[in-house]
Amino acid sequence: MDRAVAQARLAEERGEVPIGAVIIRRGEVISEAGNRTRELNDPTAHAEVLAIRDACGALGQERLEGCDLYVTLEPCAMCAAAISFARIRRLYFGAEDPKGGAVTSGVRFFANPTCHHSPEIYPAIGEAESAAMLRAFFQTKRGPED
Amino acid sequence: MDRAVAQARLAEERGEVPIGAVIIRRGEVISEAGNRTRELNDPTAHAEVLAIRDACGALGQERLEGCDLYVTLEPCAMCAAAISFARIRRLYFGAEDPKGGAVTSGVRFFANPTCHHSPEIYPAIGEAESAAMLRAFFQTKRGPED
Repeated sequence: MDRAVAQARLAEERGEVPIGAVIIRRGEVISEAGNRTRELNDPTAHAEVLAIRDACGALGQERLEGCDLYVTLEPCAMCAAAISFARIRRLYFGAEDPKGGAVTSGVRFFANPTCHHSPEIYPAIGEAESAAMLRAFFQTKRGPED
Repeated sequence: MDRAVAQARLAEERGEVPIGAVIIRRGEVISEAGNRTRELNDPTAHAEVLAIRDACGALGQERLEGCDLYVTLEPCAMCAAAISFARIRRLYFGAEDPKGGAVTSGVRFFANPTCHHSPEIYPAIGEAESAAMLRAFFQTKRGPED
């Protein structure tokens, strides 16, 4: 998760919402990414989606069986479904996201019958650091008076 | 929707699940795409995601306000969330997808409080043709005895 947090910090330095993700297989980093929605003008360029696309590219396959994904924030519905399609084995995430999450919040995608593969789910891994980083980011964006 | 169906047919010719999408703004086609998950080894390369990414790239912006999306099959949770993030104005879709859809089926993403923008939704547009194409595709894949 430390590497995912580092990716989140790099995203923040680029002016993006600080969220980072890493994909690991057999102890080896296959891909790592931070949010790039603004830089790429691409609303689908969440850290998880970029990490999944990079990992699939690196391995030359459409599925990531045996791969684990670490991400600093609870995935949204887009990313949860992408994680399912990619057949990720284990999902470790940091802060919960009651406003936009789709794992333990919102639509709880992995528990729905239209989800055909659910990873093992490990929430609240390194939660405090990820949450503090996001809180600080949004406080700065809103300005001190909000 | 005819152009979306044409994209679905092109996808089928490439060996992909036959689903196509088109994005229109003020009567003009901004992007059109078919599924490319196999070709690109990318489980996120659904027709809607590709069309959104292309449209954002073409317009140089992260949001597609005032744009309408036509797709031959009910979007999944990944695509529904991407449609929301992109601020698509109107969503027209063909066949409903009770097994994997997320609009009128499954998690009904646009009706959830964690969805912060919902398009106007027009289901069952050109439904018969889209459904027949998908049915024929999966029958061929399974073989005649199934």
